[in-house]
Amino acid sequence: MARVERAGLTDLFAPDEQTISFAGGLPDPAVFPKAALQAAFASRAQTDSAFQYANSDGYAPLRAQLAKLMQADGVSVNASDLLITQGAQQGIDLTARLLLNPGDGVVVEGPTYLGALAAFDAYEPTYYEVPVEPDGMDLHALQKILLTHSVKVIYTVPDFQNPTGAVMSLAKRQALIRLAHQYDVVILEDAPYRLLRYEGDALPTLHSLDPDGRVVLLGSFSKILSPGLRIGWLTAAPRLLQALTALKGGADVESSALVMQSISTYLASADFPQHLAKLRNYYRTKRDAMLTALASLPPAIHYTRPTGGFFVYLTGPSWLDFSALQQTELAEAHVALVPSKNLYPSHAITNGARLTFAAPALADIAPGIARLNRALTQVLHEVPAVNK
Amino acid sequence: MARVERAGLTDLFAPDEQTISFAGGLPDPAVFPKAALQAAFASRAQTDSAFQYANSDGYAPLRAQLAKLMQADGVSVNASDLLITQGAQQGIDLTARLLLNPGDGVVVEGPTYLGALAAFDAYEPTYYEVPVEPDGMDLHALQKILLTHSVKVIYTVPDFQNPTGAVMSLAKRQALIRLAHQYDVVILEDAPYRLLRYEGDALPTLHSLDPDGRVVLLGSFSKILSPGLRIGWLTAAPRLLQALTALKGGADVESSALVMQSISTYLASADFPQHLAKLRNYYRTKRDAMLTALASLPPAIHYTRPTGGFFVYLTGPSWLDFSALQQTELAEAHVALVPSKNLYPSHAITNGARLTFAAPALADIAPGIARLNRALTQVLHEVPAVNK
Repeated sequence: MARVERAGLTDLFAPDEQTISFAGGLPDPAVFPKAALQAAFASRAQTDSAFQYANSDGYAPLRAQLAKLMQADGVSVNASDLLITQGAQQGIDLTARLLLNPGDGVVVEGPTYLGALAAFDAYEPTYYEVPVEPDGMDLHALQKILLTHSVKVIYTVPDFQNPTGAVMSLAKRQALIRLAHQYDVVILEDAPYRLLRYEGDALPTLHSLDPDGRVVLLGSFSKILSPGLRIGWLTAAPRLLQALTALKGGADVESSALVMQSISTYLASADFPQHLAKLRNYYRTKRDAMLTALASLPPAIHYTRPTGGFFVYLTGPSWLDFSALQQTELAEAHVALVPSKNLYPSHAITNGARLTFAAPALADIAPGIARLNRALTQVLHEVPAVNK
Repeated sequence: MARVERAGLTDLFAPDEQTISFAGGLPDPAVFPKAALQAAFASRAQTDSAFQYANSDGYAPLRAQLAKLMQADGVSVNASDLLITQGAQQGIDLTARLLLNPGDGVVVEGPTYLGALAAFDAYEPTYYEVPVEPDGMDLHALQKILLTHSVKVIYTVPDFQNPTGAVMSLAKRQALIRLAHQYDVVILEDAPYRLLRYEGDALPTLHSLDPDGRVVLLGSFSKILSPGLRIGWLTAAPRLLQALTALKGGADVESSALVMQSISTYLASADFPQHLAKLRNYYRTKRDAMLTALASLPPAIHYTRPTGGFFVYLTGPSWLDFSALQQTELAEAHVALVPSKNLYPSHAITNGARLTFAAPALADIAPGIARLNRALTQVLHEVPAVNK
């Protein structure tokens, strides 16, 4: 919610109880493991150390547990290669702070994650947008940018991209690593949805394919445990990690000892793989309901078919303006989404929209999409001849 | 601890169990209200909203409770004037991010809070040091700087300054506000120790004396509740507050809903004024023990007599180098402090040292100072004639 409010979209939400919202990328509270987390906090809140200052790099046992999870995912890291952050968002912020001076080039996917733009904005970069294809970034477009402009950072969500749901292919991952090497660019790999895969097999992270130590890999508990804990992590080559850890110290000293320790207790005591399996089943069902409902949309509206993550992305005829619709027809229909204008730093693309299937109740998905369908059908029907 | 580690002082601590440390500005875990906090977390961890995304400005009921506490302290603010931060440290970071470009002038007190320098450093400012007198900043020195240099921000801890313990007089507070107005500078007022006063009456905050809305006032639960929660707050004029809130969103989206809500429950259910009174008594006793012990130091060592906060500051003859001593005589004596070199951005002053009476056990204060006394007596005795 906060992420969307930052972009001035607060209107989409709050006051209207009737609205079915596909806008905010919120996880479903029904799958928060509240009882196990409550027990973990109760246990840690008995210790002095949970309430005391700790270390900027984060609670060491938690880093060891995360390293093990990452090793199981093919990422070869140890506890000492990790920094605990305030969600993956702080990982974006610290990396931007370390690497960017005003005017420096940053490549983002078009469309991209709204919150990443909010983080980068503070450092006043020059943005370059690379279109997202069904198998990830358009690398020809990327190479053209790298050939002609100085770029410091490439920001990408290769797994179940926010907002398109696209998964970058293995061939593109390998090619992206080669390009980054050739042009000496740091890749910021944001992977908050990576463990929420509903079909198929995992591809290696960019980090795993990188021989140079030029990939900063971000992880987060926000989508797989709870965003209210505000805990994420990053891994980077030692020279980068040391600088990022020092910046973390300057930014907020460290993350909460109580929260880090409680998550560590949760991971040690609960069956986290089982929890993840439950999440995957739960969100797969919602995704299926969403795709079934979307099949009724007018044929002029294209939509993606994600194999994981939280999002489906709509694309309409180029004259369609979802930002305008959101204020008129969609508001009247009591249905909300995130218009694409906000998902491009250039704000140039208006005919796209992000829908999440994670946040709405399962029972609201079909009726919500039906409202969207009626509104879009009407708009497409009424389109002036000049646009046809 | 983390704050000191950032300055490369890790050596001062960890491995040596024999060392009595007056270095890290840690609160005493004996006065963490663990049971009440545990109950608050247990209660909030039953709700969905504690684990969900929230808002960048922070949990509204907590902001209302803080506004009430601040009103009782003479600061006229409402909930909507507040932003919740990751400790006061994030308040420094966000203010620096908002106001500073590389090379911009920042006035700090000399000596000053180590962590503030770590936050400012990321924005590559030009530092100006203003000496701290027993009644606060030397305003003649300040005016000279403001006359001849462009300064964007004045950073000050007017109440029980870190590291000297000095309290800025009312006359100086008023004069500082006038100077800031005259030279159009923002004042960053850091007040983490303000409620830990062991004698005398409170003076108004700089924020209360400011007619222009140019004071950003920082507060923190780290010293009065627990640093492991990582929650602070700030208040600023609306134009600044709005920008700082947007930067907070980009930096880490928001603070932890669970932690903010649990603190709110704690404040509503516990007797916080009674807790503060207990803290004051507890730390007053430790301060008294420290001052009693310090009376035995050689007369060449001057020390401050704080009326609140966590710190006493030593000043020796100008040739004395506490950084060197810390590696030799003090290490051998198994006693630790923070040498002044780290407390000046110029690193120019070596003959000062910060001691905390908050962190060490009460029973360790006298023996620890006795060790310091023996080491300093020896060093002062051995001083080469050229330095006498």
